[in-house]
Amino acid sequence: MKRTKAVLIIGDGLADRPVPELDGRTPLEAADTPNLDRVAAEGECGQMDPIGPGIRAGSDTSHLALLGYDPFQVYTGRGPFEVLGIGMEVRGGDICFRCNFSTVEGELQLTDGGFTGATIADRRAQRIAEGTHDLAQAVDGMKIEDVTCLVKESVEHRCALILRGPGLGAKVSDIDPHEEGKPPHLALGEDEASKKTARILNQFTLKSWEILKDHPVNTQRLEAGKLPANIIAARGAGLAPHLEPFAQRYGIKGAAVVETGLIAGIARYLEMTIPDVPGATGGADTDELALAQAIIAMLEDHDFVLCNLKAPDLGGHDSQPEPKIKAIEKLDNLVAYVRAHAPAGLHLAVTADHATPISFGDHTGDTVPLAICGPNVRPDSVRSFGERAVVAGGLSRLRGSDIMNILTNLMGTQEKYGA
Amino acid sequence: MKRTKAVLIIGDGLADRPVPELDGRTPLEAADTPNLDRVAAEGECGQMDPIGPGIRAGSDTSHLALLGYDPFQVYTGRGPFEVLGIGMEVRGGDICFRCNFSTVEGELQLTDGGFTGATIADRRAQRIAEGTHDLAQAVDGMKIEDVTCLVKESVEHRCALILRGPGLGAKVSDIDPHEEGKPPHLALGEDEASKKTARILNQFTLKSWEILKDHPVNTQRLEAGKLPANIIAARGAGLAPHLEPFAQRYGIKGAAVVETGLIAGIARYLEMTIPDVPGATGGADTDELALAQAIIAMLEDHDFVLCNLKAPDLGGHDSQPEPKIKAIEKLDNLVAYVRAHAPAGLHLAVTADHATPISFGDHTGDTVPLAICGPNVRPDSVRSFGERAVVAGGLSRLRGSDIMNILTNLMGTQEKYGA
Repeated sequence: MKRTKAVLIIGDGLADRPVPELDGRTPLEAADTPNLDRVAAEGECGQMDPIGPGIRAGSDTSHLALLGYDPFQVYTGRGPFEVLGIGMEVRGGDICFRCNFSTVEGELQLTDGGFTGATIADRRAQRIAEGTHDLAQAVDGMKIEDVTCLVKESVEHRCALILRGPGLGAKVSDIDPHEEGKPPHLALGEDEASKKTARILNQFTLKSWEILKDHPVNTQRLEAGKLPANIIAARGAGLAPHLEPFAQRYGIKGAAVVETGLIAGIARYLEMTIPDVPGATGGADTDELALAQAIIAMLEDHDFVLCNLKAPDLGGHDSQPEPKIKAIEKLDNLVAYVRAHAPAGLHLAVTADHATPISFGDHTGDTVPLAICGPNVRPDSVRSFGERAVVAGGLSRLRGSDIMNILTNLMGTQEKYGA
Repeated sequence: MKRTKAVLIIGDGLADRPVPELDGRTPLEAADTPNLDRVAAEGECGQMDPIGPGIRAGSDTSHLALLGYDPFQVYTGRGPFEVLGIGMEVRGGDICFRCNFSTVEGELQLTDGGFTGATIADRRAQRIAEGTHDLAQAVDGMKIEDVTCLVKESVEHRCALILRGPGLGAKVSDIDPHEEGKPPHLALGEDEASKKTARILNQFTLKSWEILKDHPVNTQRLEAGKLPANIIAARGAGLAPHLEPFAQRYGIKGAAVVETGLIAGIARYLEMTIPDVPGATGGADTDELALAQAIIAMLEDHDFVLCNLKAPDLGGHDSQPEPKIKAIEKLDNLVAYVRAHAPAGLHLAVTADHATPISFGDHTGDTVPLAICGPNVRPDSVRSFGERAVVAGGLSRLRGSDIMNILTNLMGTQEKYGA
């Protein structure tokens, strides 16, 4: 019962549909992928529904499922995962909000009956693009009662707010009135815990205005004839779920070699190791060998490494077959390096988190191909790695949530269920 | 991201087992079906478990699953769906009963302690076959407190009762004593809402007797020496579930071109459009081209059309291979018409709601074949439409509850789950 290690490589958005310009082949079928084909030929193949048949997965819900966390149980809404996506650290129990930097006109006051004295003149502060980092910094870390308020800017006028402290609930209404000419809405909580959240959030809103209205970024905007971004209008409260850390769930040490903030955020949430990979840009120009080297380095003191290569997804979103093919060939190159430098007995799985078909330009619910090679698999008749070639494989049709069980079974690290 | 439309054609009871008289072929394998084979050849195939592997589906539970409503969640018993099956309109919250027209002898009285003064002489009123429509009409629409009592006859002595009104529960015992020589049972409710139902039901039972005992149908029966059908004895209370309408669940407009009351009832429950199709008899003589024309007409202003052709099921129930083969060839003809007249870009799926094998004469839990063609599928190697041919297909093995997700994915109308 020797234990082995495993690597799970995700080609982001890898799967596709037949492309007329490629003579009806998919980009994966058309790409030159001798190393992926070797994994398929030496291993066991199948098709996989990241979430379930036909369901259009996001990268967040899919990676949760691939790591064995049922998104239908733990994904309470985009809030907490969007906050992860912009690189904030989220903890179970955090109340996460999507926010706008908005413009209010007047002298804002907070009374028991609501906000008065000022109205929202522009919900997006003229889509402010510069200076939001400084504005976020000015209010980040504010303490109200026993709650810490964490703020980080996102793109344009968007930012995120986390309320972190004991006894907070997420059933709280929006500050953002969702229309202009109105004062900010008073946040109201449904239950005791959410009433506390509402009280803190209303205070935060007032105090953020007090700090932001005279901030140098806004003084300069006013001088330049622009609207100030002088209030943070929160909406879409979401409770960050308490997820069992990866190591605790599986009894093995896991790392994530990934390129996007959203997936890094999920891995951090599960307390996996996330190495910094210079050269991993998340773009078409990414250094795939840097990712491969990071995987090999992580394998030294980890049992399991997840790797996500973002580039294939970009070609899909842009509806460009050639960049997608080139990205897939980078994936092939990455796999070649890992296999050449892997410790003996490694199990290697290659799959995708969802399809991003050239013809559709966004994620679809089609199956993705899956191949697993290593000493403990039962090799099948499949000889190449493609959406249709793997259909005949020994793994048949699986779900993303099955993968960790299958890998820990092959690794010999899984506890027996029963006697 | 162009949206397309879809048609889901169900051959009722289509799937089968090898038949010795057909040299071990199934009726579908033996039938001449060039158009079904073309769908399979151009499309993607697989086998489907309508409810789950090996589970013997009814037409009601199967169609609920095929439309994406989990029967294990929403099917609270036969009551509400039997009521649909005899053509009554059911609404979420209705309390539905299966009833008998029975014979009581004596002068019925309702006291706090129960019904007295009369006993059930025949639970089935000598299996009364004629006049039940008039009897049902005589009590249909009765108002008791704020509840409306709706009654409709079914076959022989059977009828159905719906109690419709606010605050009703379904945990109520039967009026029918299930044996003769006893008075009707006093209905009792378990909780507050069901106590209200019981109170109304007891009143309804007394009042139905008061109206029916002197009804001309019964006067004539007495004159002819027959037992009168002078009371409605209810049993098997069931709460009609609140189902999210089809359009709300999927964000698309759906129609159902169907032949049987039960399936029409389910579609009506989901607020789908149900066109009248002259020539659709539900029998072996049905005009399949009238069904096909109705599908094409519905596609003009609907995104999705479900069609059920009943005839294949009849041959199965009768254990007659030849009528089943002929019915399957009608299905082939229907598909030919739809494909010839379909709008560009249509996705067409063909499958069954369950198997009704010649050798068994009733529904079985075998898988059913599935083929889907259209612009967004990944064609596979299957070249004919049959129970065994589709096994090698790209869809592998699915469940009925996956179909709507798969179709809305192909149609490009499904919302992404996650980011």
